[in-house]
Parts: sequence; C-alpha cells; structure tokens
Amino acid sequence: MKALIVFAHPEQKSFNGAMFETAVETLGAAGHEVATSDLYTMQFNPVSGRHNFLTLKNPDYFKQQLEELHATETYGFADDLEREITKLEWCDLMIWQFPLWWFGLPGMLKGWVDRVFAMGRTYGGERLYANGVFKGKRAMLSLTTGGPQQAYPKGAFNGDLDAILRPIHRGMLQFVGFDVLAPQIVYGPVRLDEAQRTELLSAYAARLNKIAEETPLDVGIY
Amino acid sequence: MKALIVFAHPEQKSFNGAMFETAVETLGAAGHEVATSDLYTMQFNPVSGRHNFLTLKNPDYFKQQLEELHATETYGFADDLEREITKLEWCDLMIWQFPLWWFGLPGMLKGWVDRVFAMGRTYGGERLYANGVFKGKRAMLSLTTGGPQQAYPKGAFNGDLDAILRPIHRGMLQFVGFDVLAPQIVYGPVRLDEAQRTELLSAYAARLNKIAEETPLDVGIY
Repeated sequence: MKALIVFAHPEQKSFNGAMFETAVETLGAAGHEVATSDLYTMQFNPVSGRHNFLTLKNPDYFKQQLEELHATETYGFADDLEREITKLEWCDLMIWQFPLWWFGLPGMLKGWVDRVFAMGRTYGGERLYANGVFKGKRAMLSLTTGGPQQAYPKGAFNGDLDAILRPIHRGMLQFVGFDVLAPQIVYGPVRLDEAQRTELLSAYAARLNKIAEETPLDVGIY
Repeated sequence: MKALIVFAHPEQKSFNGAMFETAVETLGAAGHEVATSDLYTMQFNPVSGRHNFLTLKNPDYFKQQLEELHATETYGFADDLEREITKLEWCDLMIWQFPLWWFGLPGMLKGWVDRVFAMGRTYGGERLYANGVFKGKRAMLSLTTGGPQQAYPKGAFNGDLDAILRPIHRGMLQFVGFDVLAPQIVYGPVRLDEAQRTELLSAYAARLNKIAEETPLDVGIY
C-alpha cells in the first residue's frame, strides 16, 4: 500500500506530532510505502492565488478554476503544487493529521486543499463523488479536539462531531472520489497523562496495522 | 453602527469583490463607520504559529492557547494580529465576504479565524456561546457558491447549505458570542449575466440599508 500522511500542527512535539510519527513508523514497519506532507515544516503556502500557476491564461482577471483547467492541459502548476498533486495521485491511502480548530481544518490544511484539489486534475465534469478521480482510494481524518468527548454527542455542548466533520468528509474527500474511513479521534490530549497518551498511540498503531481490512464509512448525504 | 467587513478573494474584480465594495459603499453612505480587512490585499498571513506573539512564554514547546492567554495578559500579540483583534472588538456588525471553497472558508479566512480568535482575549472560561465575549454584536456571512441553487437543498447534489455553514455559524461566530444574521448567498455568479449581477448587488444594498432591523437566526445546536 502507498500511504500519504498530511500533517498540520505548529509544534512537532505535540500529541498531533506523536500521532503523525506513529503513522509514519507503523505503516513503514509494515512494509508500506509512505510519503508525507508535513505542512509546517515544509512552510507550505496555504494562500490560493495567481502563484498556483507557472503562467496565467488571463493575467487581467484571475479565475482560479479556469486557470486550473489551463494548467492541467499545459503542465502549468507551480512546483510546490505539482509535488502535492503528484503525491495525491500516487497514494492508495491518505491520512490527514490535525487539531480540530474552530470546528474545522487549520487554515494551513484548508489552504492545502484549496490549492491542491485543482479542477481538471482532481475533479471536474462528471468526475465527482462516486465517479470521482480518486475512486478506489481511501482517506482518513486523524484529529484531536480541545473539548472532552462528552462535549461532542448530538445536542451536547459543542454538538455532533460527525456533523461537524461532514463538510470535510463529504465536501472534500468524497467530492474527489475518496472512500472515507472512520475518523481517528483523540479528545482533549491536553488533559491526558503520559500513560494515557502512550495507550492511545498504541491503539492507533494497532488500528493502522489492520487498516487495509476496514470498510469505508457511509458518511451520508446532507 | 460600526461595521467590519472581512474580505477573502484573490481577484478584486470578481463578483465577491463587487459584493465587498457594495457593502463598504452602502454602509458608509448610510452614515455607519466602516472598517475593512481585505485579506488578499493586506497579504495577511493565515498560518497560525509562534509568530502570532511578540514573545513566547515557552519557546521550547508551543501551545497556542497558553501563549494566547499569556499574550492577553502582557499585550503580547504580534502587530498584524493586534490590529485585527482590535477591529473585532470595535465593531457592532461583522460581515465575512468570501467564496465557499470545498464546503468551507478559504484557507486565508480560516487562518484569520485561527489567529485572531485568541483565547483569553476573544473567549475562554465561561465566556462562550450565549455568554461569549462578543455578546450583543452581530455577524453575517456573505458568500458565493460554485454550484447552482438546486444543488444545495437537503438531500440534493451537494446537500443542505445550512448544515454546510453550521460549523462556521455555530463553531466560530456563535462560539465567541456573535448573534448570526441570515447569510447572504449568491449561487453560481460565474453563470450570471451582467443584468443579473447588477440586480443582486442592488438587492444586497437594499438589505444592508435595513440590516439594523433584522432579527438574528436560530442556528440551532447540532
């Protein structure tokens, strides 16, 4: 299996960093090929705009999707984008490791999606959802929350985490054709002691060792 | 009324740009004070990290929320952040003008939230939701979609737009205490002709002229 792990956290020593390292090591030790996009370390630029492209079809009026179609035809994506799109095309399994910030992806990771999920190359025309470009590939969110688990059931303080994640599961991953695996969620790592953290990392490694056998989620439509 | 308009689009000449200009001009002409954050023009940095702060309490292990609490006590936010937080504190009405990208905010705007909505200064302790720091202020999303209106009802091709926007309404705006007004939505401006665009801009201006009279939405919990 070829696994791409995208990581977005400003502190490598964080629990998110440990989850990222666990995935890299566990999948590597099991004989899988592993590629990474450690966005903070790479100093990835999450701002989508004219610099996504080597040349512009219309420099006077920037329409990103038209430029994406043009770049798809002319091999015209900027180098930092081309590298990321190539990893996306290469992988069988993609994992996003991130802290849930403001009920969503960190800006760094959202900007990666805005730039890398380019029209023409990663979706377009009829190639969406079940007919998506990345049909047959699988993706999984691995995230930490600030709040405790009891804040996230339906009707609770912050509300249903499945619904909070749906724009990501449905609107990003399934939109381009990925099958979505159940998210790996660690609630409030800031309040866990060392033994609990070690146990959660081991549980994650155990899951990853059998991940090829998992059945994708039915995310449901809205 | 004091209005802050945050704008995130890479093309000033876009329909989003016209909506932004309409809001600035209409509210100004009606005698309101208007401040803007035109994030692309400002070249705002949407990456949240150590550079959010003038000094760090713990440079060896970056915990953003602890640094935010420290910066709140010591006037320690970086200048670009301090300016944005001050605008947030100043306004009575905040409008976010953006294209809906991948069922969410553009990375530029999401990163603005990640950095500007700082613990201590904008939320924390019991100061959340109905007891939020910005209680009494109002906020409105003004957005464009790629798909047509018929793609966004519940169960349709892309699904219920209210549910898609809920993480923003509930998890960002209401979380820090804003009352949320009904979103201003323009579906698929790319497919509209000049007359239709002009009509939609006029309708937006008409709404803005009476916005002080509007009743906030019941966004509902999850």
